[in-house]
Amino acid sequence: MKPSTDPWEMNGLTIVDVSIHDIRFPTSDYLGGSDAMNTAPDYSASYVQLSTDREGLFGCGFTFTIGRGTEIVTRMVEQLARDLVGRRIDDMVRFMAELLQEVTQDSFLRWLGPEKGVTHLAAAAVLNATWDLWARARGLPLWRLLVELDPEDLVKCLALRYLEDVLTPEEAVAMLQRRRRGHEERIRHLAENGYPGYTTSAGWLGYSDAQVQHLVEKAIDEGWSAFKIKVGRDLDDDLRRARIVRRLIGEERHLMVDANQVWEVPQAIEWVNALSEIGLHWIEEPTCPDDILGHAVIARAVAPVLVATGEHAHNRVMFKQFLSSGAIGVCQIDICRMASVNENISVLLMAEKFDVPVCPHAGGVGLCELVQHLSMFDYIAVSGSLENRWIEYVEHLHEMFVDPVRIKNGSYLLPEAPGFSSEMSPEAIAAYAYPTGTVWRARAAAQARRR
Amino acid sequence: MKPSTDPWEMNGLTIVDVSIHDIRFPTSDYLGGSDAMNTAPDYSASYVQLSTDREGLFGCGFTFTIGRGTEIVTRMVEQLARDLVGRRIDDMVRFMAELLQEVTQDSFLRWLGPEKGVTHLAAAAVLNATWDLWARARGLPLWRLLVELDPEDLVKCLALRYLEDVLTPEEAVAMLQRRRRGHEERIRHLAENGYPGYTTSAGWLGYSDAQVQHLVEKAIDEGWSAFKIKVGRDLDDDLRRARIVRRLIGEERHLMVDANQVWEVPQAIEWVNALSEIGLHWIEEPTCPDDILGHAVIARAVAPVLVATGEHAHNRVMFKQFLSSGAIGVCQIDICRMASVNENISVLLMAEKFDVPVCPHAGGVGLCELVQHLSMFDYIAVSGSLENRWIEYVEHLHEMFVDPVRIKNGSYLLPEAPGFSSEMSPEAIAAYAYPTGTVWRARAAAQARRR
Repeated sequence: MKPSTDPWEMNGLTIVDVSIHDIRFPTSDYLGGSDAMNTAPDYSASYVQLSTDREGLFGCGFTFTIGRGTEIVTRMVEQLARDLVGRRIDDMVRFMAELLQEVTQDSFLRWLGPEKGVTHLAAAAVLNATWDLWARARGLPLWRLLVELDPEDLVKCLALRYLEDVLTPEEAVAMLQRRRRGHEERIRHLAENGYPGYTTSAGWLGYSDAQVQHLVEKAIDEGWSAFKIKVGRDLDDDLRRARIVRRLIGEERHLMVDANQVWEVPQAIEWVNALSEIGLHWIEEPTCPDDILGHAVIARAVAPVLVATGEHAHNRVMFKQFLSSGAIGVCQIDICRMASVNENISVLLMAEKFDVPVCPHAGGVGLCELVQHLSMFDYIAVSGSLENRWIEYVEHLHEMFVDPVRIKNGSYLLPEAPGFSSEMSPEAIAAYAYPTGTVWRARAAAQARRR
Repeated sequence: MKPSTDPWEMNGLTIVDVSIHDIRFPTSDYLGGSDAMNTAPDYSASYVQLSTDREGLFGCGFTFTIGRGTEIVTRMVEQLARDLVGRRIDDMVRFMAELLQEVTQDSFLRWLGPEKGVTHLAAAAVLNATWDLWARARGLPLWRLLVELDPEDLVKCLALRYLEDVLTPEEAVAMLQRRRRGHEERIRHLAENGYPGYTTSAGWLGYSDAQVQHLVEKAIDEGWSAFKIKVGRDLDDDLRRARIVRRLIGEERHLMVDANQVWEVPQAIEWVNALSEIGLHWIEEPTCPDDILGHAVIARAVAPVLVATGEHAHNRVMFKQFLSSGAIGVCQIDICRMASVNENISVLLMAEKFDVPVCPHAGGVGLCELVQHLSMFDYIAVSGSLENRWIEYVEHLHEMFVDPVRIKNGSYLLPEAPGFSSEMSPEAIAAYAYPTGTVWRARAAAQARRR
């Protein structure tokens, strides 16, 4: 389709079908993804595909989950998505604010949140699919659709409710306008160098020292310059592993640690200070993700180590407070926990306002594929900077996607295919749909034989 | 059963069955419960009954919802409750901390929260049923079971994780110990006078001025001394209705208003200050329930009007922050949104520490029945005071319960029957189970005929 100058024009295209899948990958087999809180996750997704009346045009989106319970999120996705059949795409995207309202502010479902937990995870899946569809219909990778939208049009799509004391719509437009100069130069920079990443793949808590050493060496060879390891189960173990990693990566490369919420506030301060001799760039999720004031206390006590959080920060109002109170020095947005692009861009703008770098959470399935678009957009159109900014990278499950991330020298290459890079391959869906996919049926049969 | 001196002893009784119902009452027919955010709720519940191997001994619990979406909460309740079959009750209550961990910290399900939204609502239902069962097995109304438990034993049941910077277990025990003197005197006071309530039944937003006037006059006749009305849709309407109520109730009776989260922070300040000529005791839910810092700003700007919130504050960590930052002057715990008695008593203790009165949220179905036990316990064993404390009262649906609240002169009478007053009558379940109950089937049939 040749893009018209009206970004909403879609020639009357209409959604004719919605298909929804509960997809689970048996990652617990090898403890990829294991940390102090999640000891054996099966990386999963509630996956939704919106089909249109144009052959080959569809939109895919999902929310990330970790196994059991995905069926409940999937039911909520069904509730939110089923009414989309029969909608015209141009109406959906032209009135994105209304769609956002519909999937996040339904007066019945907001009682079950509001804007948090299962209902909000489901809203993310539906909206991610909508953004994918819009970008595909325009023939653009999502980051470029966002960059090319007029700031006023983009701001109309954003989740700005309850932010007025920190970010008004007018201010959001002005921020985007101000950064328009230099768009092309920054796009060129990304096309040539990519966007820096950091790797979490070497330091899952379930891995042995030898495994960690091997993986860090491999990652150094691959060109990574920033590494994150999991901590929080045993201080001596953490010190030993952190020292191994530091010795391997040298002084110039960055080391981050992630405690996955295991500590009380005073314990976090003690533990991080005990680890700080290793030279930490950030401590991630030191305590309860709802504890804004607790994070602020920790941030003051462990400086210059930065406090990072966000993968469990359930909406923009949480980020408004984390950012405005100085509780975080690194802002970890999550494209599947918050309401997709609509809410994540609101947070990018607030982070820019408070001068906090955004380093998206991507430790899951498909999160790398999605968040790269947001970070590219952040650099091009919001922050204009790559300083102390990385996109998280985990190695597994990219092969499940039709347009997987491309990494070179520890950097994410600029996505080129139209859409949000969110489409899983038909083979992946056939194999890992739960419980009817071929892989899960085979496992059930094997289990039955063992009994 | 004659209580032994060991509060955990249950003669080996075991849970033999779990039954779960999606119960919905068509309250939207008459707009009871309507407010600025929830325009036409059908008050509902995910209801769970734990049956034991002793004839006639069971435990009932539920979480409160408002219609559509209850089926999803109900599925989550099923996930959490199904493993209880075969458990010995004495193990469940002796190791209440483990049970709490099991239903709120399951590593898969906490990804869908943690401790918020659908998963936490479901945890409340299961734990409410467990407390009802324990109190029934001991032959005591729940408030008395709590009062009679040794402070050390009670504190072992509480949700204290992530509170260490504000409330340690040792401090919790000491607070309860300190208040032991005077228990019997305060119980006598409650037996004679009841616990003061305030009524929300006169001021739902969907009611006409004439309805409001009639209901307020009736409530004055019944002896109520504190009244709450809904505001936030239109300032002129709010002023007119508030003046009507104030004129009727005079200067000595208290008037509270509830905005159900409709305002931005600056708008809340403006609106409340515009209303304050009427003489408001508190403004409830002025803005987003996640916005702790926003509430603190509003609290400073609208004083001496107090800021109240809590019915959407999803866990103790939110209350820790609301209380420690001076963001609220009235603490509105919710027995169905937080993890039952275990988490609500933690909040009672923190509220006492920060000298903030607790006035539980009870605008729903069955909430009055449940929270009265907590407020009685709060007075007897935690705060020792009734000053500026009221239990919310709404008039509808008490007839659905086997042991409904008893109100006299605007006060709640001390519950006497064993348990948590949480049992719905078999007739109510048969009529309002959704969609198979007789009432819903009749409505579906009528609707089909109209088509």
